[in-house]
Amino acid sequence: MGTDETGMERTPVTVMGLGLMGRALAGAFAAAGHPTTVWNRTPGKAAPLIASGVREAGTVEDAVGAGSLLIVCVRDYDAVQEILAPVSGALSGKVLVNLTSGASDEARALAGWAAEHGAGYLDGAIMMTPPGIGAPDTAILYGGSPELFAEHEQTLRVLGGATTHLSSDAGIPSLYDVALLGIMWGTFNSFMHSVALVGTENIAATDFLPFATDWLGGVASFMATYAQQIDKGEYVAGDATLETQVPPVGHLVHESRIRGIDAAIPEYTKALIEEAIARGHALDSYARIVEHFRPAV
Amino acid sequence: MGTDETGMERTPVTVMGLGLMGRALAGAFAAAGHPTTVWNRTPGKAAPLIASGVREAGTVEDAVGAGSLLIVCVRDYDAVQEILAPVSGALSGKVLVNLTSGASDEARALAGWAAEHGAGYLDGAIMMTPPGIGAPDTAILYGGSPELFAEHEQTLRVLGGATTHLSSDAGIPSLYDVALLGIMWGTFNSFMHSVALVGTENIAATDFLPFATDWLGGVASFMATYAQQIDKGEYVAGDATLETQVPPVGHLVHESRIRGIDAAIPEYTKALIEEAIARGHALDSYARIVEHFRPAV
Repeated sequence: MGTDETGMERTPVTVMGLGLMGRALAGAFAAAGHPTTVWNRTPGKAAPLIASGVREAGTVEDAVGAGSLLIVCVRDYDAVQEILAPVSGALSGKVLVNLTSGASDEARALAGWAAEHGAGYLDGAIMMTPPGIGAPDTAILYGGSPELFAEHEQTLRVLGGATTHLSSDAGIPSLYDVALLGIMWGTFNSFMHSVALVGTENIAATDFLPFATDWLGGVASFMATYAQQIDKGEYVAGDATLETQVPPVGHLVHESRIRGIDAAIPEYTKALIEEAIARGHALDSYARIVEHFRPAV
Repeated sequence: MGTDETGMERTPVTVMGLGLMGRALAGAFAAAGHPTTVWNRTPGKAAPLIASGVREAGTVEDAVGAGSLLIVCVRDYDAVQEILAPVSGALSGKVLVNLTSGASDEARALAGWAAEHGAGYLDGAIMMTPPGIGAPDTAILYGGSPELFAEHEQTLRVLGGATTHLSSDAGIPSLYDVALLGIMWGTFNSFMHSVALVGTENIAATDFLPFATDWLGGVASFMATYAQQIDKGEYVAGDATLETQVPPVGHLVHESRIRGIDAAIPEYTKALIEEAIARGHALDSYARIVEHFRPAV
């Protein structure tokens, strides 16, 4: 084991998968003084890491043998299985930390498979792009045994200061991951739509941007209000009723159409509002829209 | 005219339309020492304002005669026309400040109509709900004559500290209004979708909220990067390529379906990404999606 200036032992880690993200992970561990081994299905991606003291394993067996923590970050869960299945006999006593993106059911299945082979399992969702690995505000969300997380928290925090344990259920990080990405894409899509809209009047995206980002601050504060309403099941419109939002969403559809811009996003919003009004909720807040998405019970 | 403690004359204002917003506008003017007259199509809504020194006009003629600045905030532009057409002969020399929500073509038409009758015209979009009127960070966006705006800026700033003149074109505030509301609805809809998604695992909206709002901060910083890329027409993926976003958006569709949640939003995102990839942009940033929305030239 490596030791730091205080004599503390550093857990040996193995990073499997050397895409942009895997390389960033291995680099952060090495920089923090962890004995770091890397492995990639196709060799030759480890060169810059080797210069900083990382060792490249020649075989999967070697890679698995070298680390106590096995960090896996590959394309998908099928790839994880393809890599680990041949060495399943060597996993006993290891801790598998899977940072591969996937769905919650895949994460749960892999956690079960790891347990069958005597390995501990943590599933993590990295809410950041590779350049942010190691930064104090980088969020990495974990699921799996809380004891296992507590044991390795200090090591895992090397990858991101906002490292959080969400649940003993290994499927939860994947769910948070796609839920947060969904908010990102939804916001991006509306932003692109709006940039195209004002662009028809030769307004630059960078001129529109400060209005949009200031506005997002207000949107976030409404989200806080709506989250409380959703949990209480009480949708009192302290701001604007659903009814008052019918004319402006109609204007957005109209502006989009007359300017030749795909109106699918505002048309969907208009349909959501009209559906809630048809259910008798004209005077409620926008938070009532959550009922559209909730599965029937 | 009223005067303040420094002896400065305060412009007499008339507020026409006493919905929640109109009442907030009149209350803010009265609190700032402006001689304030109000009028509403159906009487009886002025009572709390009268207690704070506001005068209720008995007729539209009286209302128009009393103010130099005529603030109109009613349901839609048709209502503005219905109210003002009968008194068009009395508008000469007045400044019409229309804060009614509408579309850009309606605002331009009304500006032309006001000019024909010798009235100045400013069109404004209030980016805030009524309780925020008068607050220092409340944004009200104006279009119309810059000289007219400069002349009345101090009076208009009474309604919101973040009062801004966007353009000499009276249609621009309406366009910004719906463009910003579009971003709001797009973000709200994705948030509601995600709250429903994590709700299937009994995670409360208020527990998910801090992850979502922290994440929105990162989303806003990506928007800043993308705005620059859009203006340059160069979509270099410094973070994540479109190609790498195909598996996670597929996971979001999958998670939505297996949990019985409307997958229309992630399916739309998936289609946008696949369309951009099919056009040869697999290795570009998400900002390339703006081309989907831009009208064909």
